[in-house]
Amino acid sequence: MAQLTTESAAASTLLSKYQAIRSLTRSLAAPMSAEDQMIQSCPEASPMKWHQAHTTWFFETFVLRPFLPGYKPFCEDFRRLFNSYYNSLGDPIPDKPSRFFLSRPSLDEVLSFRRYVDGAIETILADPGDWELERRIVLGLNHEQQHQELMLTDIKHALFSNPLRPVYCSTPLTREQGSKSSENTWHDFRGGLVEIGCSPDLTDATGFCFDNETPRHKVYLENFSISGRGVTCREYLNFMADDGYARPEFWLSEGWDAVKREGWRSPLYWERDATDETGWRVFTLKGSQPVSSLLETAVCHVSYFEADAFAKWSGCRLPTEQEWEIAVNENPAAGNFLETGRLHTGVSKGSGIEQLFGDCWEWTASPYTAYPGYNAPPGAFGEYNGKFMSGQMILRGGSCVTPASHIRATYRNFFHPATRWQFSGIRLAAHRGQPS
Amino acid sequence: MAQLTTESAAASTLLSKYQAIRSLTRSLAAPMSAEDQMIQSCPEASPMKWHQAHTTWFFETFVLRPFLPGYKPFCEDFRRLFNSYYNSLGDPIPDKPSRFFLSRPSLDEVLSFRRYVDGAIETILADPGDWELERRIVLGLNHEQQHQELMLTDIKHALFSNPLRPVYCSTPLTREQGSKSSENTWHDFRGGLVEIGCSPDLTDATGFCFDNETPRHKVYLENFSISGRGVTCREYLNFMADDGYARPEFWLSEGWDAVKREGWRSPLYWERDATDETGWRVFTLKGSQPVSSLLETAVCHVSYFEADAFAKWSGCRLPTEQEWEIAVNENPAAGNFLETGRLHTGVSKGSGIEQLFGDCWEWTASPYTAYPGYNAPPGAFGEYNGKFMSGQMILRGGSCVTPASHIRATYRNFFHPATRWQFSGIRLAAHRGQPS
Amino acid sequence: MAQLTTESAAASTLLSKYQAIRSLTRSLAAPMSAEDQMIQSCPEASPMKWHQAHTTWFFETFVLRPFLPGYKPFCEDFRRLFNSYYNSLGDPIPDKPSRFFLSRPSLDEVLSFRRYVDGAIETILADPGDWELERRIVLGLNHEQQHQELMLTDIKHALFSNPLRPVYCSTPLTREQGSKSSENTWHDFRGGLVEIGCSPDLTDATGFCFDNETPRHKVYLENFSISGRGVTCREYLNFMADDGYARPEFWLSEGWDAVKREGWRSPLYWERDATDETGWRVFTLKGSQPVSSLLETAVCHVSYFEADAFAKWSGCRLPTEQEWEIAVNENPAAGNFLETGRLHTGVSKGSGIEQLFGDCWEWTASPYTAYPGYNAPPGAFGEYNGKFMSGQMILRGGSCVTPASHIRATYRNFFHPATRWQFSGIRLAAHRGQPS
Amino acid sequence: MAQLTTESAAASTLLSKYQAIRSLTRSLAAPMSAEDQMIQSCPEASPMKWHQAHTTWFFETFVLRPFLPGYKPFCEDFRRLFNSYYNSLGDPIPDKPSRFFLSRPSLDEVLSFRRYVDGAIETILADPGDWELERRIVLGLNHEQQHQELMLTDIKHALFSNPLRPVYCSTPLTREQGSKSSENTWHDFRGGLVEIGCSPDLTDATGFCFDNETPRHKVYLENFSISGRGVTCREYLNFMADDGYARPEFWLSEGWDAVKREGWRSPLYWERDATDETGWRVFTLKGSQPVSSLLETAVCHVSYFEADAFAKWSGCRLPTEQEWEIAVNENPAAGNFLETGRLHTGVSKGSGIEQLFGDCWEWTASPYTAYPGYNAPPGAFGEYNGKFMSGQMILRGGSCVTPASHIRATYRNFFHPATRWQFSGIRLAAHRGQPS
Repeated sequence: MAQLTTESAAASTLLSKYQAIRSLTRSLAAPMSAEDQMIQSCPEASPMKWHQAHTTWFFETFVLRPFLPGYKPFCEDFRRLFNSYYNSLGDPIPDKPSRFFLSRPSLDEVLSFRRYVDGAIETILADPGDWELERRIVLGLNHEQQHQELMLTDIKHALFSNPLRPVYCSTPLTREQGSKSSENTWHDFRGGLVEIGCSPDLTDATGFCFDNETPRHKVYLENFSISGRGVTCREYLNFMADDGYARPEFWLSEGWDAVKREGWRSPLYWERDATDETGWRVFTLKGSQPVSSLLETAVCHVSYFEADAFAKWSGCRLPTEQEWEIAVNENPAAGNFLETGRLHTGVSKGSGIEQLFGDCWEWTASPYTAYPGYNAPPGAFGEYNGKFMSGQMILRGGSCVTPASHIRATYRNFFHPATRWQFSGIRLAAHRGQPS
Repeated sequence: MAQLTTESAAASTLLSKYQAIRSLTRSLAAPMSAEDQMIQSCPEASPMKWHQAHTTWFFETFVLRPFLPGYKPFCEDFRRLFNSYYNSLGDPIPDKPSRFFLSRPSLDEVLSFRRYVDGAIETILADPGDWELERRIVLGLNHEQQHQELMLTDIKHALFSNPLRPVYCSTPLTREQGSKSSENTWHDFRGGLVEIGCSPDLTDATGFCFDNETPRHKVYLENFSISGRGVTCREYLNFMADDGYARPEFWLSEGWDAVKREGWRSPLYWERDATDETGWRVFTLKGSQPVSSLLETAVCHVSYFEADAFAKWSGCRLPTEQEWEIAVNENPAAGNFLETGRLHTGVSKGSGIEQLFGDCWEWTASPYTAYPGYNAPPGAFGEYNGKFMSGQMILRGGSCVTPASHIRATYRNFFHPATRWQFSGIRLAAHRGQPS
Repeated sequence: MAQLTTESAAASTLLSKYQAIRSLTRSLAAPMSAEDQMIQSCPEASPMKWHQAHTTWFFETFVLRPFLPGYKPFCEDFRRLFNSYYNSLGDPIPDKPSRFFLSRPSLDEVLSFRRYVDGAIETILADPGDWELERRIVLGLNHEQQHQELMLTDIKHALFSNPLRPVYCSTPLTREQGSKSSENTWHDFRGGLVEIGCSPDLTDATGFCFDNETPRHKVYLENFSISGRGVTCREYLNFMADDGYARPEFWLSEGWDAVKREGWRSPLYWERDATDETGWRVFTLKGSQPVSSLLETAVCHVSYFEADAFAKWSGCRLPTEQEWEIAVNENPAAGNFLETGRLHTGVSKGSGIEQLFGDCWEWTASPYTAYPGYNAPPGAFGEYNGKFMSGQMILRGGSCVTPASHIRATYRNFFHPATRWQFSGIRLAAHRGQPS
Repeated sequence: MAQLTTESAAASTLLSKYQAIRSLTRSLAAPMSAEDQMIQSCPEASPMKWHQAHTTWFFETFVLRPFLPGYKPFCEDFRRLFNSYYNSLGDPIPDKPSRFFLSRPSLDEVLSFRRYVDGAIETILADPGDWELERRIVLGLNHEQQHQELMLTDIKHALFSNPLRPVYCSTPLTREQGSKSSENTWHDFRGGLVEIGCSPDLTDATGFCFDNETPRHKVYLENFSISGRGVTCREYLNFMADDGYARPEFWLSEGWDAVKREGWRSPLYWERDATDETGWRVFTLKGSQPVSSLLETAVCHVSYFEADAFAKWSGCRLPTEQEWEIAVNENPAAGNFLETGRLHTGVSKGSGIEQLFGDCWEWTASPYTAYPGYNAPPGAFGEYNGKFMSGQMILRGGSCVTPASHIRATYRNFFHPATRWQFSGIRLAAHRGQPS
């Protein structure tokens, strides 16, 4: 995947960015057969073919139809077929859990659809300059990057659902055995009035953030401390060994209900394995690994409920999203992203506040709500983020399957607290100073 | 599909029968892409690829492993992967509703599996003579024919689940417009002590019936009358127009619950169409048709509950399976089967008791239970039919997607009374004489 | 309860029968408080207060409103409030699972309603002679007896649902410890053409059977053998000890699903009790008993699936309802009924075919369907039995909570095969002769 | 209910407060029969008898058992029977939705339990002075007041579930017809650093707030405006008339799902009534009223989703809990509380910020989370509030069924956003200045 990074770095114009990002989607899908790209193995997931079509639908619907004079849609039916959730465009059909019914259009047709739309976008970008047009293309590219991450997240679940446990990528996962994660450190922050959120430069159509990151605004924080790295598998095994999944005192009420209802005893993708000293192995995009070989890597695929219970067991808490954003400070958005090709969490090495970006999304203690002064855009774009502001928790920092150019310190991801299929992990915080 | 019939007729030996039937499976699957063959659109259905693998698994598991010395299984994992419901062979994995998770093995691999097993069966049949071996191959062929019917039944549902309503077969459906179904006639039978059920000639391994058709046994019947053809769409539209779906007096209690819960207003596959004089169109394997063009054909894809309600609305009842079998009398098992290539119900023409075979399965008033003296075979074969003897109703006569050589007068099919995805229709009966 | 029996025996006229049966209902409800009579602890059950009101509603709706000139209903709202399932009388409100919402009318008002209707019935019966009127009162009394049994069945479940396990009746259950059930014996019947079903004398309004017992009709039976008593707890414990609940080979497919879904490991009302030598105790209307004290009594509160699995484990089968009825032969309908006051199954003592009546209902292998020539009565009475003829199995013989005068050899009870809250048990049969 | 207020006002010592609050519970339950007190008509609700027992259990468990030497519990079984959700005290039995199974203990026994515990509390309070003991009694009294509100909330739902629509209180509801609500006014607040939350005086055991109101802390607010009264029925009818329930653009995604799943077309307790000019009537604790008679009263029994959709339709938003608390400013916690005896929302009359307290709880835009620095108390008390901090929204200000002495500006109530059985309504806010 190394050459993709190079390509991406070279993108100096909107068109070259467009081409690089669209090309990455194709590359990510390439190892998967048309049959693999049909699977939808849980209600949160979508088939990989659908992702490829829907991201293209986005450009056709929001860019080509309104902006390219004389544009002839690739197929009129696709307008409703690949609408995800935009009620203002008519009832999405089929409903989300039935996306795997779409054997037609075939993968080949979807790839033709992609090429057709790419051609039209190239035409329209030959003579750019319309600010709204460019904004929409930039939005479409960020949208496509979100789906690139989902493609890998969803295919991991799909492959795991097959008793044969096929792999996405046959390159071996670099073993971290013998490798030692840095000791955990605590980093203190002085409270006070701070600013968070994004204030995009609207004079430049390519300066981008999502509407839900705006407006930049003041918040008052108390003193807080934050841990220097993500919680490791070794630490999480201690929680498991201390009967963490059997002691209600650590759990939110709804989390405890989930533990009992779902029979959770470990993170998602962990399977009992008596041959490993830990008693467990874990499925990755590069196949099943003994947990003993990944002890120092960040634990991943835990729900908010598990993250919160682990934090309480530790005598700590999760950071708020405001604390997390302040902790980033001037740190660049660098880390173990999609481009490293690792496709799994790694080991923290430095002595600063490491792993804020990449490895895995970090659950925060903050529910997903509107920032003060937030207004959803009018029409369909208002449905992009605004209508999901209930019942979900904020995650920050991106993961090992997030494209590097997609993330930033102000980026707000959100999922329901029982969600585990995402690459989601844990960072600890405390009210003041390091817990004794 | 005409050439297949010829092939089948030529099959004079067990090997040629094996080859003809296995080849028909391939032909039936041929129009469908690997992606189409992944879909599982309702809990009753299975993906077409799975059908192709499971029928092959049957020969490998029950014939090759025990009977072919030195046989090396194609892939050890397939043993559990393509087990349908035989608990005596270990827990089926994945469970039935998750068969569409199996993107791997690919369709190509499944077709290789088929060829591999076909080769081994040809080897083993080069020197036949073992009665039990031959019996199992004959059972495996009958099993495969059942799945041939299911393949078409399931793919119809799968294609209908796609908003694009793709077709299985692009040959136009012969229009019956202008054609007139024969007037309905009533045929009286005198009651008394009769015999039903099958008594296979066990000196011949190829003389076949399923265990649940045995033993042949005496039953006492009252006088009864039976209708000369299946209920037509025209007649069923009258029931609908008379508010049949809104009047609880015609319905069994569980049927009425189903009407309310499922919102039934017509047979499955009927969709509102204001452009047709009937107000409806119906989806077939050859695409969507105005119901006005099929008024005289047998109504199809109704549940037992709808069949029973229609019968009550008519002042009649459904026949018992014993009456149905007696009504066949000496009639040959001929009719609109898979080999006609119509793939939909047709119009009754004669003046006798027509359409007993083919067109659509006919719901009987008989729950599926053991015949007196029935004993399930030991081991896995006992699970084939015996363990389903609760909660299901008997259907008789085969349908337009049943292979002709698969059916006989004693054949007992069975489904739950709310089932509609089968090609299932209605024949009326009455206690004595024609209802006035 | 002894005095009730006497009363009942004395009933020589329809009025005295009416008074005796209505009085028994009051006696059965007497030990239960108004609060107890509110509970509805499973979807099959109804509150005891509702039973008292509904049985009265039956007389008001079907006798007093149409037959007593100038009759003023007790409360107009009761017409829909206490309708059970008669769609022809309008939508039953509230729906069945919500009957416990009816704190109003109070128990006192319901008892007033009973007295009010009793007075009107006494008026109308002062001058009887109308055949249809008398038929309906007889039907109403049989209906009330069915609900007397349900009252005890339902209250048993209600009391068991309370962690305090309160008792219905504080009289101790006679211990059978030391008592020995008769050895099981097998009784052979020669097959042939026989008659079953009921042919009521319609010249006498009080000669009664339910519509579903008619018409009397011929059936042909093979030779069969039937066991001389019900299966005992001791025998059932052997099945449990032999891992009966863990071996799918004995179970119908839907039964095995139920075992896994419901976690069945024993009959309903059995609870683990390490202090008893059997490891179990069982809840009865007279409180919780060690199973060791009831080893020789008939096992009770098993589903059809458990009965069938036990029979298969035994190398036997369940009798059909026709065999059961023939086995009764000339035996009087005598046994451990409600009037013994035991309220639990007992020990079989004789050497004939014992326990056919009373103790517990016996699951038969026969699904509930219409007899040949059956016609449901018109109107609401047609809903009494006819609309339930799908998905249920026949039980025969009554139980320890059935009023003695309610039962007869042709009586057909029916429940879904997963039902366990009824007093339902097991009698074995075999195809010919005793199994070796 | 006027005399209760007087009584309550007279309570000058902890004992007299205890007696007054406990006595109010009895008074609130008095109009309801033992049968009424059995009903549990939705999963959120509990039977009134259970409330009476559980509040008493609280004192026995947390005060008498640990603090009164030689205290003999009223009944040992009650320890688990009336535990609501304190996992640290053992598994609550029965589970919440099964509380209506408890016909035993009877209401009389529960009332004896109450008297028994009251006597013991009087003993222990004869010689107070233990700070922890007094704190727990104060907590128990606040707990009991919460359940007083729940008793009325739950019985309203229970009575509405009865087709007879019985009333809780037969005093007629004062008609507001002709009465005119004050015009809506908007009140601007300047942003900046403010303090919210409670900082109880811990030197005084009776100075009380719940743990989730602490610690008092700084927050930064932007300028905001808040509406001068609650949204009225008249205004809500405009939303309904403008197809508010049919236009997804106003709804959160989960709210739109709820509208479709539940078929919402109006607030809870509204029923179609063609005889009223509005087309609706509404059920109250004093019986069913035409909506036209309540047009100017605050709309009530709406979910968060409806409140948020109404706000978006209005071009406004809901206030955050911080804004709400600041808006209270120095306003006393006065309003239409339980003590007015109205038991329904009323009409706003003043020109300030009216109805902040009483009438109905106001949904805020704030999810229920921990305040900065919050620590749940150790042990069972930590389960009181802390474990519910996921998935719920904050409501403020109390309602017409909240005891006046129970509420304060910092009080945080919380429910799931789809909840409607609470007396919950809408107040609008806007980012800056009044919406044009």
